[in-house]
Amino acid sequence: MRAPSRVVFGRGSASRLPSALEIPERRAFLVSSPTVLRLHGDVLRSALAPRPVVEIEMDDGEPAKTFATLGTILDRAIGAGVRRDDYLIAAGGGVVTDVAGLAASILLRGVAWYAVPTTLVGMADAAIGGKTAVDHPLGKNLIGTFHAPSGVLIDPELLSTLPARRFREGIVEIFKTLLVARPEAARRMAGGLEATAANREIDAALEEAIAAKVEIVARDPRDAGERRTLNFGHTLGHAIEASGGFDRWTHGEAVALGMAAALRLSAAREGFPEGDADALVSELVRFGGGLAGGAPEWSERLERALGLDKKGTSGAPVAILLSDWGRPVVRPVEPAAWRSALESLRA
Amino acid sequence: MRAPSRVVFGRGSASRLPSALEIPERRAFLVSSPTVLRLHGDVLRSALAPRPVVEIEMDDGEPAKTFATLGTILDRAIGAGVRRDDYLIAAGGGVVTDVAGLAASILLRGVAWYAVPTTLVGMADAAIGGKTAVDHPLGKNLIGTFHAPSGVLIDPELLSTLPARRFREGIVEIFKTLLVARPEAARRMAGGLEATAANREIDAALEEAIAAKVEIVARDPRDAGERRTLNFGHTLGHAIEASGGFDRWTHGEAVALGMAAALRLSAAREGFPEGDADALVSELVRFGGGLAGGAPEWSERLERALGLDKKGTSGAPVAILLSDWGRPVVRPVEPAAWRSALESLRA
Repeated sequence: MRAPSRVVFGRGSASRLPSALEIPERRAFLVSSPTVLRLHGDVLRSALAPRPVVEIEMDDGEPAKTFATLGTILDRAIGAGVRRDDYLIAAGGGVVTDVAGLAASILLRGVAWYAVPTTLVGMADAAIGGKTAVDHPLGKNLIGTFHAPSGVLIDPELLSTLPARRFREGIVEIFKTLLVARPEAARRMAGGLEATAANREIDAALEEAIAAKVEIVARDPRDAGERRTLNFGHTLGHAIEASGGFDRWTHGEAVALGMAAALRLSAAREGFPEGDADALVSELVRFGGGLAGGAPEWSERLERALGLDKKGTSGAPVAILLSDWGRPVVRPVEPAAWRSALESLRA
Repeated sequence: MRAPSRVVFGRGSASRLPSALEIPERRAFLVSSPTVLRLHGDVLRSALAPRPVVEIEMDDGEPAKTFATLGTILDRAIGAGVRRDDYLIAAGGGVVTDVAGLAASILLRGVAWYAVPTTLVGMADAAIGGKTAVDHPLGKNLIGTFHAPSGVLIDPELLSTLPARRFREGIVEIFKTLLVARPEAARRMAGGLEATAANREIDAALEEAIAAKVEIVARDPRDAGERRTLNFGHTLGHAIEASGGFDRWTHGEAVALGMAAALRLSAAREGFPEGDADALVSELVRFGGGLAGGAPEWSERLERALGLDKKGTSGAPVAILLSDWGRPVVRPVEPAAWRSALESLRA
């Protein structure tokens, strides 16, 4: 684990990438997707000039997040003669930064890397905190490391080309972080998720969510305690996402539904204010309904996916609940409780 | 990087594996080779009882040290439902411990592992210090991590079944470590390499080499400074090994020749005592001659392999020389100097 990342936030900062992150004046290994290179490649290349740039393309999107893709990136970097003092730059969504970060952590026993997230989820969550990963056929993120990027550049202007459904995912992750760690900012955002999706005025909330995550990660880089509170909504969310084959609900939509179910349990068991929970649940279910237009029915597939969530150790399954805005607690939650909370979302 | 490893040394200690290393009373994931399981599997299984044991087999030997083998180990562990508080045990030579250690470091972002080296090289060197790796078609150990085992068990009785040529490899690595870091012990061992290969009385030298390596690794776990002195003999050694297709000279034989060449340069440039160097060079060339019966001629292939050595960064190539017994220095060494040193070994 390296030192915590430098995180630079600013509209238009992508054009100042090397000075903003103090990137060495050496050849750059740029890992990115064809889409991102088409949309933002010129900005990145001219920012990096006169450095030679080795471009390593990978598809974005969950199906590309595989051990085989990791192998391809390693092959390309080694084939181009990467050395210990070289570095990767990952420009793309969470899949690109997760896979490129893992490649950086195992190339020559670890080379430096920099992250330029181009999606709102990447900016708010995926690129911050040093978790790297690829998926395995039996579960998401089962192979990975902790390997913090040396620097993360957040340029909200890169979001101008982001499709609406991807933008909505980011709104959910931002709202989640604020609900867990920045209660005042969460209250300001509550009730306005749809409006934010429409007007895309996200900079202030995004910057606050990043600051909150950076603080929590600094206190718990290895995800052994407090950092797990950022999994709020994710235990059931991951299972919902998997149960819908990763397309009926996006990650963000599934997490919104997972947050709604966790808020129901929080109100019933932990004293989260009842009226606030009702309002948040109905907003989150509307916002996260996805192609199915709402929460799924309970199913065996969903229950099995809950059991495979890697966050668990061999003890009882635990989840994050809230005793109040900004007050997360870690509690055992049995599948039957998830089931009734989920079913209440369909009422 | 975890805390430094506990290293337990003792004849017969394999039968007390769990208590010696304080292995958790949970299911064990045992990564090993068919040969090691045939020779030592019963001892390990009965030591681990009543823990259930998931056996994950991989071939030993350099050709198995691949990204594909790594993928197979990950598949097997994930398929058996490995969780964050599970652990691997790697029992075998350096290839098994290197690959299993890498698997442990990227499974679920890192699970614990324990090493039970069964070769002399593994005991003296490979299993100590937390370097993990697989090879790439373009070079050895190009993919890996630093992920120290929680415990290492050294039981010299496991060596009773080790073939002679493998035993000789270990003698070279032990002598190398002593020459760099334990001058008195190195003087005791010098002149007796062949005798040690015959009588196999290695316990005292092995224990001292392990203690020396543990100390150096504790001061420089990430191989950023002092630890590199343990690469003495390895810069040219790796190139010789590759130039012979990994069978004319074993790793240990190639390192013995690399040490001989480095001693020539040490005497010529750094003041290493001339007479001592002459005696050591002739002993090492005899001892490390391998199937070719001596050192190789200089070749383009060898020069290319020198350039690919991953230890280098983009600056001038450096190597470890000795200004005296136990006094390593890091110096730039140009290929022409290696060439004449190597040619002098054939005189």
